[in-house]
Amino acid sequence: MDEKLVENAEARVQALLEVTTALIALDDEAELKAVLNTQRAADVADLLRLVDEETQEFLFGLLDETQAADALVESDIPTLHAIVEELEPQILSDIVEEMEPDDAADVLGDLNDEDAAEVLTLMASEQAQEVQELLVHEEDTGGGLMTPDFVLVHKSATVGDAIQALRDDEDTSDHYYVFVVDDEMRPVGTISIHRLVRAQPHQAVEQVMDGDVITVAYQTDQEEIARMFERYDFMAMPVVDENGRLVGRITADDVMDVIQEENAEDFYKMAGTNQDEVARPSILGIARSRMPWLLVGMGGSLLAGGVIESFKVTLAEVFTLAAFLPVIMAMGGSSGLQACTVTVRGLVTGQVSTGLVLRTVLREVATAILIGAVCGAGASLVAYVWFGETLVGICVGISMLLVICLSVFVGVSAPLIFHRFGIDPAVASGPFITISNDILGVFIYLGLATTLLHYFL
Amino acid sequence: MDEKLVENAEARVQALLEVTTALIALDDEAELKAVLNTQRAADVADLLRLVDEETQEFLFGLLDETQAADALVESDIPTLHAIVEELEPQILSDIVEEMEPDDAADVLGDLNDEDAAEVLTLMASEQAQEVQELLVHEEDTGGGLMTPDFVLVHKSATVGDAIQALRDDEDTSDHYYVFVVDDEMRPVGTISIHRLVRAQPHQAVEQVMDGDVITVAYQTDQEEIARMFERYDFMAMPVVDENGRLVGRITADDVMDVIQEENAEDFYKMAGTNQDEVARPSILGIARSRMPWLLVGMGGSLLAGGVIESFKVTLAEVFTLAAFLPVIMAMGGSSGLQACTVTVRGLVTGQVSTGLVLRTVLREVATAILIGAVCGAGASLVAYVWFGETLVGICVGISMLLVICLSVFVGVSAPLIFHRFGIDPAVASGPFITISNDILGVFIYLGLATTLLHYFL
Repeated sequence: MDEKLVENAEARVQALLEVTTALIALDDEAELKAVLNTQRAADVADLLRLVDEETQEFLFGLLDETQAADALVESDIPTLHAIVEELEPQILSDIVEEMEPDDAADVLGDLNDEDAAEVLTLMASEQAQEVQELLVHEEDTGGGLMTPDFVLVHKSATVGDAIQALRDDEDTSDHYYVFVVDDEMRPVGTISIHRLVRAQPHQAVEQVMDGDVITVAYQTDQEEIARMFERYDFMAMPVVDENGRLVGRITADDVMDVIQEENAEDFYKMAGTNQDEVARPSILGIARSRMPWLLVGMGGSLLAGGVIESFKVTLAEVFTLAAFLPVIMAMGGSSGLQACTVTVRGLVTGQVSTGLVLRTVLREVATAILIGAVCGAGASLVAYVWFGETLVGICVGISMLLVICLSVFVGVSAPLIFHRFGIDPAVASGPFITISNDILGVFIYLGLATTLLHYFL
Repeated sequence: MDEKLVENAEARVQALLEVTTALIALDDEAELKAVLNTQRAADVADLLRLVDEETQEFLFGLLDETQAADALVESDIPTLHAIVEELEPQILSDIVEEMEPDDAADVLGDLNDEDAAEVLTLMASEQAQEVQELLVHEEDTGGGLMTPDFVLVHKSATVGDAIQALRDDEDTSDHYYVFVVDDEMRPVGTISIHRLVRAQPHQAVEQVMDGDVITVAYQTDQEEIARMFERYDFMAMPVVDENGRLVGRITADDVMDVIQEENAEDFYKMAGTNQDEVARPSILGIARSRMPWLLVGMGGSLLAGGVIESFKVTLAEVFTLAAFLPVIMAMGGSSGLQACTVTVRGLVTGQVSTGLVLRTVLREVATAILIGAVCGAGASLVAYVWFGETLVGICVGISMLLVICLSVFVGVSAPLIFHRFGIDPAVASGPFITISNDILGVFIYLGLATTLLHYFL
């Protein structure tokens, strides 16, 4: 396989890093400038992330305004903060002016409020106003994602008019659709530019447009927007205000970032932490993100310990029972987490919808009975062979079955119930499942053991 | 807020379901046909998923070939199987002929091999060959994702030529770029159609194209491809063969599905199951997906039980120690999982790259010391207040600190090591972390307790 064909981002950045290091050693500032300003901004942003602070400041200073703007947009939050800290407010505001309004709003949103306000006052008033209008919207809604630049024509226009509108567009970024609006500025259709190119200039846009236009309200949550893009394979969607008037456009590349972000968020929540720790990765910051759930987990497992303590008579009588505490807790936890994860994902992707709740729960519980029977029989056998105690064997087997069934039931129900009451299932489910199943498991197992002991001994 | 503005997919499907049900009740087949054939295919696919099998067959029969093709492409695997089961092979092959070659390959890939082969023999030979060529590639590579339809011009062409090529393109789907190639069919540039429209017809394409073309080899893994799209904000990328010749195109809408799929895969793996259970949701199928990891977990936690058993002298002496087994195991497991999740995500998004391994590990361990100290002090205090035993308090506190530090170290190292050796960190890490930390936790805690007991009593 030709090595050169396997291009990947990491290799590109690595190569750029080597070239940069060499040119710094040679002190060839002119060439360095030429190289940095012709690279893709995402690669430059990565380069800036990887070098030490002094080099970072030096290299950033070599970027022309457009490239500096793009590199800032592509930078992660810690790098962004490090760079901005060293910049004169006036220079920063000149750079921000070069950004698309939605990117500018995102970058300013990531700065602290004082810095952002200072940049805005230094910016040209028209651009500052555009950005300020975007900053009003919640970052994770249609309004927060949209850019106010779009190309539109009235529904009475011709294909030729639409092409002219594309030519006249002052914004330098590429568009993929022209939006068609009625007298009230409400979107009534979309046309891909490819379709415009294929049509005859004298044709009416109404004839060639896709009239089944789906719009995004600016309050719409970004998760819902991402779902629409995936579902209908859009490259861009029109955003409308409360009167249904076209106010912006959301593009597929921004939505890809949203999908990745939302997924990451769910990941972190299920593990009991959050994305803040990635944005501000100081030791204190990370600890602050993780502590709450660890403390809740600690409280929960201390309760499980309390249950063990309360059964100490039973445990003292048949000490062997203690050896199976980990397996009972682990199996309850794992099978509950599996059911929970599948349900949370199903809710995210829309596979589990309100109409299918009963079917989902029944299928999970039926599976749990099967899994519980197999694992229960296995654990029972191990207990008997290991210690030769029939009673422990029976007790481990039965409680394993019960614990798995109950844990799976909790694992599938909790996210559905949380979702029902408008709580994000991902945040509530992971921690909730683990704790409740630990306590449940210990209680069922030792409770059953105590009952059986009373009965048989 | 105007209710009509908040459009979402679920509401659209619900409305479609109501209309369909009403029209079936009215027995108005003509209107039903008209409605179904003008809806977006993704909505029709969802409708088919939600109705019973008889209605499904009836409604699918009302779709014209293009809509039937699109609806099959958008269907999930269980619905696809249910529909295909009831179709004549000849009708199915006519429908598959209507699909884009990459979609046809995906659908055939989801059928069983016999059915797929039959459909291929019944298809028009030219189309069958195109699809067959795509089926050669692994589904999750550049070759598996690409469609062989693209618009290209030679680098000596003018903007006018490129626009003519777009007009002449027989494929009905929309394109967003024209690819520019050299004499050997190797891509040397890309031009967005918007840029073509803005340029003058007599200009050379070489003047307006983006010459920094990044290509995808057809062996490239889809995860890497998705990362490139996200990183560089592409709407489409050219795919090349082993000689660097243009053979296909990948579009952003397919990549969005890939991102969602890869994320889902990681989710399932971390919870110890896999996506097969979503594709084939029978009770036996789900149990088969989940069992392997549950059995591994069972083995691991039985080992932890063995450790407890081996310390039974110590536990018999100070029974109170048993009450803290759950909290020691839970804290090790949770803090290890947090570190592991953050590292796995970092590897996926490229935030944790090879150059940053040491920094990542050190930061995690430093955080663990902080978290461990806080939790250890807390648990120590609880133990002392609860039972009034200084020795248990000291023992719980110190081992909590040690367990958290070690678990976090394992949690951050395991995915890095797995990644290093080409094993997917997501599949290996979740289960591995939980088991090893359970055993580690019990061993450290009871080992320390035994040592302290010997020393002090």
